Amino acid sequence: MIARDLATPCPSIRMEDDAIDAVRLMAEQHLPGLVVCTADGRPAHILPGTQVLRFVVPRYVQDDPALARVIDERTSERLLGELAGRKVRDLLPAHSDVEPAIADPDDTVLELAAMMTRTHSPLVAVVDSGELVGCVTLPRLLDALLSLGSA
Amino acid sequence: MIARDLATPCPSIRMEDDAIDAVRLMAEQHLPGLVVCTADGRPAHILPGTQVLRFVVPRYVQDDPALARVIDERTSERLLGELAGRKVRDLLPAHSDVEPAIADPDDTVLELAAMMTRTHSPLVAVVDSGELVGCVTLPRLLDALLSLGSA
Repeated sequence: MIARDLATPCPSIRMEDDAIDAVRLMAEQHLPGLVVCTADGRPAHILPGTQVLRFVVPRYVQDDPALARVIDERTSERLLGELAGRKVRDLLPAHSDVEPAIADPDDTVLELAAMMTRTHSPLVAVVDSGELVGCVTLPRLLDALLSLGSA
Repeated sequence: MIARDLATPCPSIRMEDDAIDAVRLMAEQHLPGLVVCTADGRPAHILPGTQVLRFVVPRYVQDDPALARVIDERTSERLLGELAGRKVRDLLPAHSDVEPAIADPDDTVLELAAMMTRTHSPLVAVVDSGELVGCVTLPRLLDALLSLGSA
């Protein structure tokens, strides 16, 4: 069993697309993260949904959870306003010392598991010659490990 | 909109259940993590699926990704064998300086978002008087933020 067998179709978004479109895509398709492609369509990054939250939750609330309680609903309504004018590119971590969670089609289950552990990414993109084949989510990977174990 | 409105039914597991049952539950129900209850049924922890991977991927592979490639399929088949005899309790991080991602039913969308950002948890359990009401996943929370923004 290799990455190609485990990948399921998934959407992607481009670096120059609006940040709010990334949020819509994750919400509508119930995805924990998104594959981000360069202008020429090559998958280059994974944008975890939690990274988006880091932009919409004000810093002072992140630092002091008790403040979240006292902020009124009107402010909550403006949370996504923080994303106005931003591009997907702006949401990506500025620098990261781990590689993006992008796998080759012939990567093994163990390679996928090691990559997910290392990158803390909620999904791994499977890419063949610069083309997105699909994504492997954590539950899918656990399922593969179970079926290997009982083979 | 409060946590109670956003929670969807989700299963839970107990500290003393077999670790492999946690893997099965996440795989079968496509969950990124599980609510873990104490012996008396009170939700007390969230077990992220990635935490399970940390147990099944050998340490030397985590440290040196290139090794994942040279390990044969037979070894991969034994990966979940690492979980044999372990309990769910054994998979939980030994000590954590962040609180578990457990919310009150009347927590606001902002409180949920702040909690998810702080805990890096893929889901938040909503608990009312020690009883599990349900879970809020990241896509569900993004969906709530979108609908607030357009209200």
